[in-house]
Amino acid sequence: MVKKLNYKNHKIWQKAKRLIPGGNMLISKRPELMLPIFWPTYYSKAKDCFVWDLDNKKYIDFSLMGVGTNILGYSNKQINNKIIETVKKGNMSSLNCPEEIELSKMLLSLNKWADMVKFARSGGEANAISIRIARAASKKDHIAVCGYHGWHDWYLAANLNKKNKLDKYLLKGLKTKGVPKNLENSIHTFLYNDLDGLKKLINKNPKIGIIKMEVIRNFPPKDDFLKKVRQLCNKKNIILIFDECTSGFRETFGGIHKKYGVNPDIAIYGKALGNGFAITAIVGKAKIMKNAKETFISSTFWSERIGFVAAIETLKFMKKKRTWLKISKVGDQIKRAWAQIFKKYGYDVSISGIRSIPSFSFNEKNKERSTFFTQEMLKKGYLAGNLIFVSIAHKKDMVEKYLKEFDQTIFKMHEIEKKISLKKKILGPLKFDVFRRLN
Amino acid sequence: MVKKLNYKNHKIWQKAKRLIPGGNMLISKRPELMLPIFWPTYYSKAKDCFVWDLDNKKYIDFSLMGVGTNILGYSNKQINNKIIETVKKGNMSSLNCPEEIELSKMLLSLNKWADMVKFARSGGEANAISIRIARAASKKDHIAVCGYHGWHDWYLAANLNKKNKLDKYLLKGLKTKGVPKNLENSIHTFLYNDLDGLKKLINKNPKIGIIKMEVIRNFPPKDDFLKKVRQLCNKKNIILIFDECTSGFRETFGGIHKKYGVNPDIAIYGKALGNGFAITAIVGKAKIMKNAKETFISSTFWSERIGFVAAIETLKFMKKKRTWLKISKVGDQIKRAWAQIFKKYGYDVSISGIRSIPSFSFNEKNKERSTFFTQEMLKKGYLAGNLIFVSIAHKKDMVEKYLKEFDQTIFKMHEIEKKISLKKKILGPLKFDVFRRLN
Repeated sequence: MVKKLNYKNHKIWQKAKRLIPGGNMLISKRPELMLPIFWPTYYSKAKDCFVWDLDNKKYIDFSLMGVGTNILGYSNKQINNKIIETVKKGNMSSLNCPEEIELSKMLLSLNKWADMVKFARSGGEANAISIRIARAASKKDHIAVCGYHGWHDWYLAANLNKKNKLDKYLLKGLKTKGVPKNLENSIHTFLYNDLDGLKKLINKNPKIGIIKMEVIRNFPPKDDFLKKVRQLCNKKNIILIFDECTSGFRETFGGIHKKYGVNPDIAIYGKALGNGFAITAIVGKAKIMKNAKETFISSTFWSERIGFVAAIETLKFMKKKRTWLKISKVGDQIKRAWAQIFKKYGYDVSISGIRSIPSFSFNEKNKERSTFFTQEMLKKGYLAGNLIFVSIAHKKDMVEKYLKEFDQTIFKMHEIEKKISLKKKILGPLKFDVFRRLN
Repeated sequence: MVKKLNYKNHKIWQKAKRLIPGGNMLISKRPELMLPIFWPTYYSKAKDCFVWDLDNKKYIDFSLMGVGTNILGYSNKQINNKIIETVKKGNMSSLNCPEEIELSKMLLSLNKWADMVKFARSGGEANAISIRIARAASKKDHIAVCGYHGWHDWYLAANLNKKNKLDKYLLKGLKTKGVPKNLENSIHTFLYNDLDGLKKLINKNPKIGIIKMEVIRNFPPKDDFLKKVRQLCNKKNIILIFDECTSGFRETFGGIHKKYGVNPDIAIYGKALGNGFAITAIVGKAKIMKNAKETFISSTFWSERIGFVAAIETLKFMKKKRTWLKISKVGDQIKRAWAQIFKKYGYDVSISGIRSIPSFSFNEKNKERSTFFTQEMLKKGYLAGNLIFVSIAHKKDMVEKYLKEFDQTIFKMHEIEKKISLKKKILGPLKFDVFRRLN
């Protein structure tokens, strides 16, 4: 376990930022978002919910778990064995791998409302493919969005509109330099649970042919919001796309839309689908999906075999172990314990998130307190922030130990704050804000 | 070896087309482009330049070699061993993998003119990232393109312009349904080696801030074309992007632009970079690349470890074995032999392509003759079409045997055509045309 914080990883990270703009390929993995200077930043090994840094120091991951990719834990043996077998048999050839068909069938059996499937390697791609197909089907270019849907031009265009002064409707922090100006005004944002706002938007913009949204991010639907969105789409002949990249397989065996009994026209899966191996899927109704044949959508590495194999094996594992029930239960336990602990020490905190993705936010001095929390937990050997992607590797005893350390850390925070400013106990800069999602 | 053609794979493919629009994720791997009905279509195993179908029939791949991904042969042991080691150590975690930095350094050592690197998982993504960064840097949205650059909106917009009646300037076969109409007229195509045409285009369209092109596809540059494009870019303050996804590592250790002594501002690598594992790279000058920090570019699976590991090991292998020299020599040998054989039997044929990607095309009855050729070679146990991505697994004796079989097949074609129409000897439909690339 780590006892001390050190600068070494920070130096490597500084080097990385000189070679790679931004330092890495995924914003959520930038150390500044967790603990500037002192975050371990790089790993050599990962297993279950343990991560080893470059000095072979071992940490317990009660944070992002691969940014939601590893419901079955890191280096899951069953998945890894299949991958290794596939690598040996050949990951690539001039012919196609039959696993494409097998995975299609599996995903369609989880999405009875759907008929056809396309695959890609990243969530941004899957989102862009779904938009291309839906635009081809609707013959309309405008889109209403609610949630986070990747880095592509079509989506960032939402932030091009300088006339829109309502900051809450913009995707704060998503910078748009290099997005073609001609896409301005083609993407319209709406707020979750604001049915009236959405209706007004649709009525005002008859060019909107698609509604794309996350089924749920932090708070549940109110007053049958999802059902009413579905009805609105039916009435207005709008294609409904649910982005389940984050929410998929976390609370049901498939999309979280199953929980709410509302089916989209297209659903997108990613992240946890391959337990850490790159695979994403676009699942949809035939009348819409068949439009993919009328537009050029093709990429060499979408035919790479290990993505399909990883997803097939991950789905088999999830089905057998009913993992979505297990992680949801643990998430509930963590949320309850957090609430008790914060209450005990008199902290005003908001707790939210899908059951297996609990998150908390201090309603006062959040940055300062969160930074202190991450710093102190790191000293105890934990990767911990304001959000946990629970996995089945988070076993009962480990969760209990985490919650005990959590309690001690909040107690320490409370004791310090009785006497002095918490800032005096923070060794480096405060953590940065990630971009704000629409809720 | 296969002796007979069978329908089984065709039936599976028909099933696939009901589940997946188009049947698969990569157009180049659709059986209709090689031999409708009878192509094996699916593989169970691949090693060196051998591919086994679902009935465990063994073929020798003298065709696409994973559509250019496998210069080191399928399932290369050295690469595979590193991948397996990495899978065991953990492909994903909440922290970053240090291999990102190592690969960045290696790519910069091959591209002395460049300072920074970004990575993605597919060629289409890498192209779209380079365009976002270049647009952010140039502050101009319009682009001049020559070549094939993927499936994204920015590129297919070239085909939206209905007023442009000059078919040769369009990317024939690239369908644009679902591409936003507002992007119309933002992408301008030019022909390879047509400097005057390009100059006129640039002068007429001051909004063009980027020239994106393949360095070479089928024919070499004439009259210092590449140098003059570079000079034009310098004069007009235009960012020059070379798409080396296909040409990279085939004739030099790096981009084929090294051969011509012309450096771009950004180069893109993919395909062969990870020897069949998904990894693509955007390499560029700091003053341009740093703009990536001013625009949101981020994706979960771009942080997957095996892509980086595959590329590092592939580059080490290439450097040690000087693979680009070997495959170019074999490609030259094949081109010479083809020319002799076609001459011997009196066929008028165009032979073209990068040295290690030889291709041929009958100047008369190409579809019919090519279909017959593929059919007859398949009977002999060869995956063979009009184009070969040569790999180091294509050993001397195998190339000689292939050329012998090639000679016999063209001889047979010639004998038949003396008496009857070749069509009578073709068992299924003719092969389809893939979209035509700009040359």
